[in-house]
Amino acid sequence: MASSPSALSLTETSSLLALSLACFAIITNTFHGDGAPLVASLAFSGIAFAGSYSMIRWLGPAFMKAGLKGKDLSKVHKKEIPETMGAVCAVVYLLVITIFIPFPFYKDIVAATSGGGNRDVVMETIEHVQTGRFLHRFPHSKLASYLSAILTIQSISILGIGDDLFDIRWRHKFFIPGIASIPLLIVYFVDFGVTHIVVPIPLRPYLGDLLQLGFLYYVYMFAIAIFCPNSINILAGINGIEVSQSLVIAFLLVVNDCYYLLAPYPHPATDSHLFSLYMLLPFIGVSLALLVHNWYPSKVFVGDTYCYFAGMVFAVVGILGHFSKTLLLLFIPQIFNFVYSAPQLFRLVPCPRHRMPRFNARTALMESSVTEWQHPPKKPIAMLLKLLHRLHLLRVTENEEGTIIESSNFTMLNLWLVWFGPKREDRLAIEILVMQVLVGLAGLFIRHNFALLLFESDNVGV
Amino acid sequence: MASSPSALSLTETSSLLALSLACFAIITNTFHGDGAPLVASLAFSGIAFAGSYSMIRWLGPAFMKAGLKGKDLSKVHKKEIPETMGAVCAVVYLLVITIFIPFPFYKDIVAATSGGGNRDVVMETIEHVQTGRFLHRFPHSKLASYLSAILTIQSISILGIGDDLFDIRWRHKFFIPGIASIPLLIVYFVDFGVTHIVVPIPLRPYLGDLLQLGFLYYVYMFAIAIFCPNSINILAGINGIEVSQSLVIAFLLVVNDCYYLLAPYPHPATDSHLFSLYMLLPFIGVSLALLVHNWYPSKVFVGDTYCYFAGMVFAVVGILGHFSKTLLLLFIPQIFNFVYSAPQLFRLVPCPRHRMPRFNARTALMESSVTEWQHPPKKPIAMLLKLLHRLHLLRVTENEEGTIIESSNFTMLNLWLVWFGPKREDRLAIEILVMQVLVGLAGLFIRHNFALLLFESDNVGV
Repeated sequence: MASSPSALSLTETSSLLALSLACFAIITNTFHGDGAPLVASLAFSGIAFAGSYSMIRWLGPAFMKAGLKGKDLSKVHKKEIPETMGAVCAVVYLLVITIFIPFPFYKDIVAATSGGGNRDVVMETIEHVQTGRFLHRFPHSKLASYLSAILTIQSISILGIGDDLFDIRWRHKFFIPGIASIPLLIVYFVDFGVTHIVVPIPLRPYLGDLLQLGFLYYVYMFAIAIFCPNSINILAGINGIEVSQSLVIAFLLVVNDCYYLLAPYPHPATDSHLFSLYMLLPFIGVSLALLVHNWYPSKVFVGDTYCYFAGMVFAVVGILGHFSKTLLLLFIPQIFNFVYSAPQLFRLVPCPRHRMPRFNARTALMESSVTEWQHPPKKPIAMLLKLLHRLHLLRVTENEEGTIIESSNFTMLNLWLVWFGPKREDRLAIEILVMQVLVGLAGLFIRHNFALLLFESDNVGV
Repeated sequence: MASSPSALSLTETSSLLALSLACFAIITNTFHGDGAPLVASLAFSGIAFAGSYSMIRWLGPAFMKAGLKGKDLSKVHKKEIPETMGAVCAVVYLLVITIFIPFPFYKDIVAATSGGGNRDVVMETIEHVQTGRFLHRFPHSKLASYLSAILTIQSISILGIGDDLFDIRWRHKFFIPGIASIPLLIVYFVDFGVTHIVVPIPLRPYLGDLLQLGFLYYVYMFAIAIFCPNSINILAGINGIEVSQSLVIAFLLVVNDCYYLLAPYPHPATDSHLFSLYMLLPFIGVSLALLVHNWYPSKVFVGDTYCYFAGMVFAVVGILGHFSKTLLLLFIPQIFNFVYSAPQLFRLVPCPRHRMPRFNARTALMESSVTEWQHPPKKPIAMLLKLLHRLHLLRVTENEEGTIIESSNFTMLNLWLVWFGPKREDRLAIEILVMQVLVGLAGLFIRHNFALLLFESDNVGV
């Protein structure tokens, strides 16, 4: 137990307390005053940070006692640390975005009805809403879809905890986010779901301006909901990478959201991006708190729960905000890693239990991990592997007869190490993150500058 | 592992499969046809039964492996069996009531708008709804409160699992349902919450016809949400009692709901009681499946998760259905047990870790368990204990000097054994349940026949 000192230091306690008090003051002010939900959301995110920071620390021993612990294999001293700490973040996050509900929704109601709960009264102040007086507020009719977002994130948290507890097999795990997305899809269906998409200009002669996807649109949303959590879950294996890659995506999404908020109001996409901000800011709060404890050298592990939770926050934001294509632009490293992993995931190539980079205790550096071929690969696979090796997309070791005896594991982290040689764990994480930021910014740049080549009006165009 | 044979027998498999297929057929029919959500709800409950029955069996070994197991102390052979099986019921239940959403909500929308998702279009068929054509359907505006119910039940399930994993202390546990009720209260607040109550006739000269409770109404709902789950959690300790007492309450609530459905439509309370049925029928499904495995001699334990989950289903139904007073009438045995337990819960009397009846291995019967007084009780407490003994509300043992050395534990189950002597575990459970049914029926009888003495119109009156 001494290995996880669960008490907060005096500095920590006083800083967290000061932060919380300041945030509480802002929230009280916002609720009584004319109100600015975005300011309240920022304050709530501060509380989410302070809350999960302390809870992660305090609950460490309880998690260890309940058997939620693991050994960090990439260290010289392989001591046990608490695992599944993402569950703490998820619970704090869910509590915070639930308590936040009255801020974007309530005042709108008070202002737009005669009061006293008369829903029938015609909204007299609707023009105020349109002209920006009530900017940052949602109409009451959007409450159901906000709630379905919370429900889905809560479902993935329960199922993630189940996964961490029971160590579910990969081929079952894969569909867990699909089950969790059911509330989202069901409410989308009941709540007047839009299932058409705008067709890119070059295809319009064939498909028309709008394409009604109907049932296929649900399949598409389902696929996004399965992809995002799983792709974060498999880009893992070194300290801090799960949380920090999620933070990079979250920050880039926030940048993208702010871009829309600066556009002149009223704008059709503003509400979607406000919704996105309200979901992402507290997520950034809890994730930062987790990163402090999970960054190299890790004092806690995040568990599959965190990866699922984070991925589902993004999926929900992208789906309900109707910017899932932009979302996928920010997932390019994860998509690459997913596609690159496919040969092992689908067992074309042997897949060991762990594919993370190997820790070399002598140099204290991470090296590319390998899969040993017990039986030499079949001819076409051997040729493919050698081709990949030639293209610098794999490292293959052959014996004297030219038979492949081992190949590096098919993950982006291993490939990075094949390219740039062994390096310390945190250095590897930082390089991957820098790459991710650059790729993400490039994606956003392309999306906002070249989208007009494919679509006649950008969402931002006034 | 041999102690929990997790495979279903051939008879079980074929019966469950037949049941599921029949239910699927009904659901498909209902969705395509003109629709009767109540029929669909019954069919969903059948699937909920089959689903949780099989999952409880299949997941037994995984639960044991994850450390979720316990010993049954009231048996000669104290073998370990899986614990926290209520979590399985809760997850199946949540999935089922989520998938059920389009049945009470969707058709209403299609019928009441011009289609194509135009929410603005004036509802032309509103009269149909009023005249019973769309009986058993909810207006779309109720979706948010239905979702908040699911959210709250889901929250209590997460927190219940946390409780079972971490063995939280009693004084913290007590408030867990309060945290879980936050989504319910918040949405109630945002969603035009009614916070006035009808004043009983004798008090009207002083308070008026309607009393605006405002903030206090939220305190009241919060209290109900804390009370129901906790009161079921402490009326526990013998095989099957948690599930069967919940089933009795659920059945009596269903009887009460049906009473309203038989009243001429349109009736203001119909929607509330339909909502109640839609929540309770699948609950009965999953609970029956659990009872089969938890009844004497138990093959699985239910965990705090089940007690919280069950209590929260009742709280949600009572609060959103606006019949919490009737609900409390069905909780009379639990209220008695809660009040009777208070001296030990609040440590006026020493409280051992377990207060359940004691198993006498020689007779194989359950006996009243006792607390030993290490130090003799203080004078006023001793007098009170002796008074309770005289009133047959406790059994006290004194030494030769008249000092109390032990007293029976303050639970209804122990008191029952004090009154009627030792008996076998299942016999005790059955007697308590019969008493509960009789008290509950008496409560409903009084409520529907004498309420007019206190209120000028019963909800049922046309």
